[in-house]
Amino acid sequence: MSDADVVKSTIENLEFFSKLDESEKERILKNSIIKTYSKNQILYDHNSECLGMVVPLSGTIRVTMASENGKEINLYTLEQGDVDVLSASCVINQISFDTVMIAEDNCDVIIIPAIVVSEVQKKNIYLHSYILEIAANRFSDVMWTMQQILFMRIDQRIAIFLLDEYVKSHKNVMIKVTQEEIAKNINSAREVVTRILKRMSADDVIEIRRGKVIIKDIDYIKNLAIAD
Amino acid sequence: MSDADVVKSTIENLEFFSKLDESEKERILKNSIIKTYSKNQILYDHNSECLGMVVPLSGTIRVTMASENGKEINLYTLEQGDVDVLSASCVINQISFDTVMIAEDNCDVIIIPAIVVSEVQKKNIYLHSYILEIAANRFSDVMWTMQQILFMRIDQRIAIFLLDEYVKSHKNVMIKVTQEEIAKNINSAREVVTRILKRMSADDVIEIRRGKVIIKDIDYIKNLAIAD
Repeated sequence: MSDADVVKSTIENLEFFSKLDESEKERILKNSIIKTYSKNQILYDHNSECLGMVVPLSGTIRVTMASENGKEINLYTLEQGDVDVLSASCVINQISFDTVMIAEDNCDVIIIPAIVVSEVQKKNIYLHSYILEIAANRFSDVMWTMQQILFMRIDQRIAIFLLDEYVKSHKNVMIKVTQEEIAKNINSAREVVTRILKRMSADDVIEIRRGKVIIKDIDYIKNLAIAD
Repeated sequence: MSDADVVKSTIENLEFFSKLDESEKERILKNSIIKTYSKNQILYDHNSECLGMVVPLSGTIRVTMASENGKEINLYTLEQGDVDVLSASCVINQISFDTVMIAEDNCDVIIIPAIVVSEVQKKNIYLHSYILEIAANRFSDVMWTMQQILFMRIDQRIAIFLLDEYVKSHKNVMIKVTQEEIAKNINSAREVVTRILKRMSADDVIEIRRGKVIIKDIDYIKNLAIAD
């Protein structure tokens, strides 16, 4: 398929599309593009121009909040099937904060440019409301992250991470991940993660290998992940 | 004015109202009520039925996130002029988290019941989109709180709190507040707040009295509040 075909078939499936008139449809399809980002490339931050609506086709995008002195919190990640609009926060009057979007690996992403989104949503209440629905989804994601950071013990956060990876890989107990990556994902320090993993390993719950964690007692991990 | 008149004049001024048809207007006005809550009374939590849209007429409402083991984080507060919809989260499919609403002092609040909001917003895209706009406002409030908790030093968070109170009271340097209340407001412990206030007092920036903090050096407080 050509890029234009991929853009067309993806965007036509987004919920708002059928509510647009013909000229709005054309305006969006004509101006949307596929952009390729390489690992660790920044898609969007407070220095960038307002990007637009983001629809990942492949790869993973990490969305973070950065402090002015360089600290960083992972808010959520985006994958194929997700849509994000915080990278078009200039078109949402109610959103007054900045996020940073970083390619976690090589990514292909459809971008519906902010200027197009902005113009169409001003005339079309259905697109306006779709954008706010996506923002509300992200609000839920952020609250979940906030709950984890503020309320949960590190071992529980690690268990949730390992369980997520296990489910994502269709129940493969061998999780390919470095301790550094776990730390980043759960918003903790590498030293802290190492300490907890060592304890779990001593308890025979996991086995630690270079760049891998092997889950040996999945029931323990499950129970820890869902503990109150 | 009668309760019905207050309800009518307040709700008629909300942005979505003019976009409703006559029967929708009537349905909302007929079913909305003024409820009075006393200090520390819970308006809404995960045990309550879905409340509805909340429009404070007087008093202050604290909105928090509670962990299952009783820890609590202040997310934002509501006062006259605000509208909130997280207490009607059952009507917003995208919102999957629970908040708790507590009367900070005696409050009069207009409640547009969830069932009415739900029915009207399903037919009327303008109300649907208004609700999501309010949710996006709260998203911004929560991100601001998250930034403070995760990125800012306690002394800066205290300075922001004191400056807010100073501005709210039209530049009165005498802030009526206990150390316990400051701690609650900035999501910290009383002991920590006491330590910082003592240091500020030793530096002659503030004076501590029973149930009061007097700002002696407003420029210092301003600079600390806006520091990077």
